[in-house]
Amino acid sequence: MNKLAFLPLALIAASPAPVPSPNEIVAAAKAEDWVAIAPADLLVMDLAADRDAKPRRVVIQLMPAPFSQGWVGNIRKLAAAQWWDGTSVNRVQDNYVVQWGDVTEKKPLLDGLAVVPESAYSISLVSPEMIALSTKDVGSGVSTIIELMAKLSKVKRSSKPDQYAPKSIFVRGWPVAADPNNTWPVHCYGMVGVGRNMPPDTGTGAELYTVIGHAPRHLDRNIALVGRVIAGVEHLSSLPRGTGDLGFYKTAEERVPILSVRTGDKVTVLPTYEYLSTESASFAAYADARANRRDAFFIRPAGGADICNIPVPVRVGK
Amino acid sequence: MNKLAFLPLALIAASPAPVPSPNEIVAAAKAEDWVAIAPADLLVMDLAADRDAKPRRVVIQLMPAPFSQGWVGNIRKLAAAQWWDGTSVNRVQDNYVVQWGDVTEKKPLLDGLAVVPESAYSISLVSPEMIALSTKDVGSGVSTIIELMAKLSKVKRSSKPDQYAPKSIFVRGWPVAADPNNTWPVHCYGMVGVGRNMPPDTGTGAELYTVIGHAPRHLDRNIALVGRVIAGVEHLSSLPRGTGDLGFYKTAEERVPILSVRTGDKVTVLPTYEYLSTESASFAAYADARANRRDAFFIRPAGGADICNIPVPVRVGK
Repeated sequence: MNKLAFLPLALIAASPAPVPSPNEIVAAAKAEDWVAIAPADLLVMDLAADRDAKPRRVVIQLMPAPFSQGWVGNIRKLAAAQWWDGTSVNRVQDNYVVQWGDVTEKKPLLDGLAVVPESAYSISLVSPEMIALSTKDVGSGVSTIIELMAKLSKVKRSSKPDQYAPKSIFVRGWPVAADPNNTWPVHCYGMVGVGRNMPPDTGTGAELYTVIGHAPRHLDRNIALVGRVIAGVEHLSSLPRGTGDLGFYKTAEERVPILSVRTGDKVTVLPTYEYLSTESASFAAYADARANRRDAFFIRPAGGADICNIPVPVRVGK
Repeated sequence: MNKLAFLPLALIAASPAPVPSPNEIVAAAKAEDWVAIAPADLLVMDLAADRDAKPRRVVIQLMPAPFSQGWVGNIRKLAAAQWWDGTSVNRVQDNYVVQWGDVTEKKPLLDGLAVVPESAYSISLVSPEMIALSTKDVGSGVSTIIELMAKLSKVKRSSKPDQYAPKSIFVRGWPVAADPNNTWPVHCYGMVGVGRNMPPDTGTGAELYTVIGHAPRHLDRNIALVGRVIAGVEHLSSLPRGTGDLGFYKTAEERVPILSVRTGDKVTVLPTYEYLSTESASFAAYADARANRRDAFFIRPAGGADICNIPVPVRVGK
């Protein structure tokens, strides 16, 4: 507990300079701590211009292996086929999600989309994807996912389990959870997932949503997560809320037309986006500062932070 | 772990009907489980109409004793003096807060506002307020706040501590955290707090904000919480994001004028708002269902929920 607040004013004035804020730590990170995101791993969604004729571009980073690759593969195919062009944003539910795709649910899908099983919501330690990851980067000798995670991660996180999983941790730029046998991505603000009908349907990837409120972690392992919004989330989060059930827009006029969705390698003018390596010392310092704010505004560090309160920093490359 | 997803389809069809969803539990709650909120405990903020000439009303429930009563008292005085009329919404930062008040910071405050100490961010077990509460409702014999909380609450919550406090629990309609000696309200979506300058300033209550993103729990015990938005949060959360530092609007045109702020007893036409008693069996069932979704859409209950993922239900009275 920080006692600073209880010191007389004269002592405060004489006390050491406050430690840097999380943003200051990120701003001071070395160039090599930033990882460029390949344009092919971006999904660029252009919405119709707003009422002031301002363009609205949303940029999504697709999730890397070993997570959700069946759905991500479908999404790449749908983008290549320009399937979303002419569809719309159809649902905006406050403190929950924005959802987009074909509101008629009748537009023919592509041939050859993968049907992904529910088991792919998480990745087991003995899955081929995880064995490949483990062998390549960690070597042999890990017997649990948590052990693997610990070897992959350099971020010392609170040993407290969160309310949803025995372990939550950052691996290669992504917030993930784990139990001894499985690992899965988690629903933080801005994460993008695959809409689906009732189970055992798992969705194709044609209907997508993003989180615009408090992390709905109860959706973890119940819906596929495929990426996260890294730019332009305000074009979704500030849309008028729908007044129909579940926040669906009631009228066609309310829906926001989607002009085009392309992977980044098909977009002519696009900056380079970079994320702060979650394996860097800078990220470790940032995560610690998020959990223990000691910059001048704060009088009492929390002593912890849930994984969704440590958003992975993303910037436009310099 | 729910194994339903791995059963053959024929067995799924024969399985029992799914249990009710959290919303269905709330809809089925008995009339006596709902607690009417006194109009005098509401703060009604009318913003200028939107571009389509639609009115925008935001209704805030002020926090009851023993929490933050110094600031709440100031807010009542400011509302009675119509102090906010003609001020504006000045800051909208995505996934964080919307803030309103006097953007010039030069409007004279009222005489006689309380200057509240930082110690009032939390309430100790030996404070007069807590002794009064404890004596009235629990009787003597509790030696820690957590014990008191346990007696006050009927909701069985996961015994896992959250990342921010040894205990988080619902008391009299509000999400609060506690350690053995203190209790304090927590920053969930929609909670309303008091903007302040650098410590030891604690703010007067004239500058307010609400949370429009993932719970910024690191602000707990660093800023005063005084209430929560119970209606019309979408008029704040869907505002365009500010493009200045910290999401402040850069121009006067972007700011949203505040027409008036009154306590509910001074508003002519206002429905009765009710919250679901957090001491009711209905709330206990709702909270359990939020933590363990077993309704038809879900294949895997989470087994827990963080306190901000269990929003206290509020409705317009019937």
